[in-house]
Amino acid sequence: MKLLRVGTAGAERPALLDAEGTLRDLSGIVPDIDGALLSDDAALGRVRAAADAGELPVLDATGLRVGPPLARIGKIVCIGLNYHDHARETGAEPPAEPVVFMKAPDTVVGPNDTVLVPRGAAKTDWEVELAVVIGRTARYLESADEGLAHVAGYAVAHDVSEREFQIERGGTWDKGKNCETFNPLGPWLVTADEVPDPQNLSLRLWVNGQLKQDGTTAEQIFPVGEVVRYVSRFMTLYPGDVINTGTPAGVALGQPDPKPFLRAGDVVELEIEGLGRQRQEFKDA
Amino acid sequence: MKLLRVGTAGAERPALLDAEGTLRDLSGIVPDIDGALLSDDAALGRVRAAADAGELPVLDATGLRVGPPLARIGKIVCIGLNYHDHARETGAEPPAEPVVFMKAPDTVVGPNDTVLVPRGAAKTDWEVELAVVIGRTARYLESADEGLAHVAGYAVAHDVSEREFQIERGGTWDKGKNCETFNPLGPWLVTADEVPDPQNLSLRLWVNGQLKQDGTTAEQIFPVGEVVRYVSRFMTLYPGDVINTGTPAGVALGQPDPKPFLRAGDVVELEIEGLGRQRQEFKDA
Repeated sequence: MKLLRVGTAGAERPALLDAEGTLRDLSGIVPDIDGALLSDDAALGRVRAAADAGELPVLDATGLRVGPPLARIGKIVCIGLNYHDHARETGAEPPAEPVVFMKAPDTVVGPNDTVLVPRGAAKTDWEVELAVVIGRTARYLESADEGLAHVAGYAVAHDVSEREFQIERGGTWDKGKNCETFNPLGPWLVTADEVPDPQNLSLRLWVNGQLKQDGTTAEQIFPVGEVVRYVSRFMTLYPGDVINTGTPAGVALGQPDPKPFLRAGDVVELEIEGLGRQRQEFKDA
Repeated sequence: MKLLRVGTAGAERPALLDAEGTLRDLSGIVPDIDGALLSDDAALGRVRAAADAGELPVLDATGLRVGPPLARIGKIVCIGLNYHDHARETGAEPPAEPVVFMKAPDTVVGPNDTVLVPRGAAKTDWEVELAVVIGRTARYLESADEGLAHVAGYAVAHDVSEREFQIERGGTWDKGKNCETFNPLGPWLVTADEVPDPQNLSLRLWVNGQLKQDGTTAEQIFPVGEVVRYVSRFMTLYPGDVINTGTPAGVALGQPDPKPFLRAGDVVELEIEGLGRQRQEFKDA
């Protein structure tokens, strides 16, 4: 299923994009799309049955904003340097084990919302990423297969990053990853049953119409199931948590000087095969 | 005011400890203690007026668990190496600007709840910290005075840390800071009006009755108002967000080998002048 949330920011209603591409209202059968729904097989079953039976009311998509497809995100765990080609372009050794950092859920915006270049920032960069949404509490998992079994679904994430804040200002990467609006998510949360192989998805990102990233999750150093297993040994993952699984090559940081960092007026578009497309205009904070 | 939340985990009710040390029920006038309350001057005024008038019902404290004094925490921003004496003991240069890392809100437990030593962990360490609770949205603040004006109150935090996960496993410190139960908070949220000088508070921590940390917030490299100002330039702080402002000298990491890291069966007690006392028994996860 393609689950989404539509409406003004903070007042989104749950919806479903059906197999014919028609937007359907879910607000009559579930209160929202969140960890509580994703961990509730009976509620998910009701959604699926209503969708299959064609019983869901059609929603007029005209002029409707698409919000992030997940409410009440508990935490966002991010994996750094998780693509062979991206590690190469940044001059970093492929890590021996996953690099972990955090993004606050309050950085999440809808897939087509404005993204703000922070004040004083000169090195704002793009990163298309496969976001993994957790559906069952994951704690000290033993295998990558177990890891995959705890995934409720997938979405496109834009892990917007300010490289000077991240790398040159002391401390951890978090300083350049948590600026407001820095995590567009969506348009859809695609349930795991519709993503048979998360290691065979193409990811693309354009800046002002020019293709910058053109990768595949086959290049991931640590695949999705292994990432979930690994993270679950250090922290408990709860339904509604998100893991941003890293970005492929092609970010501004990896280009020759002068690096083409983002500025107000730039437009970034990104997509992952089967998971939909985002478009953000950048403005000054 | 000393605000707190009492009851079983996940079902706490809001309460107040009055000037005579009597526990009073707040559930009749506010739904909970959270960012919404802390940013609502009228609601806080009603609590204060009811307390002053002696109108709040007495709560029987017998056998009542104390939970974390804040619900629905948005994010926890942590400041590393923020005490001159702690920077010295870890052999680190005092940082030129605050070191920032993150803790997920799901790590928060009550002040006397059990803390779990992670599986496979051999270097679990203690850190008594002054927690700052945000009361007004803080975004690109200009001065430390403005920073202080955005603080709703203070609490004791225990920033439990696994040093091997934090330092020796690649990536950022977050890996050793986000294990389940790693952020005991409370017992009280003391409103800022009752903490006239947050830079003159003594902090102490004992392990199995032995004093390990005996510091003062006067040793903070970056004082509270400056920390709030600084962080607000990198991320927006919202009501109900928490900043753990760093720990003074005396952690296990700073001791000679063999370092006395925590193990199941250890008991840690900690307190900050005027903000109350915590006691945790450590068990294996």
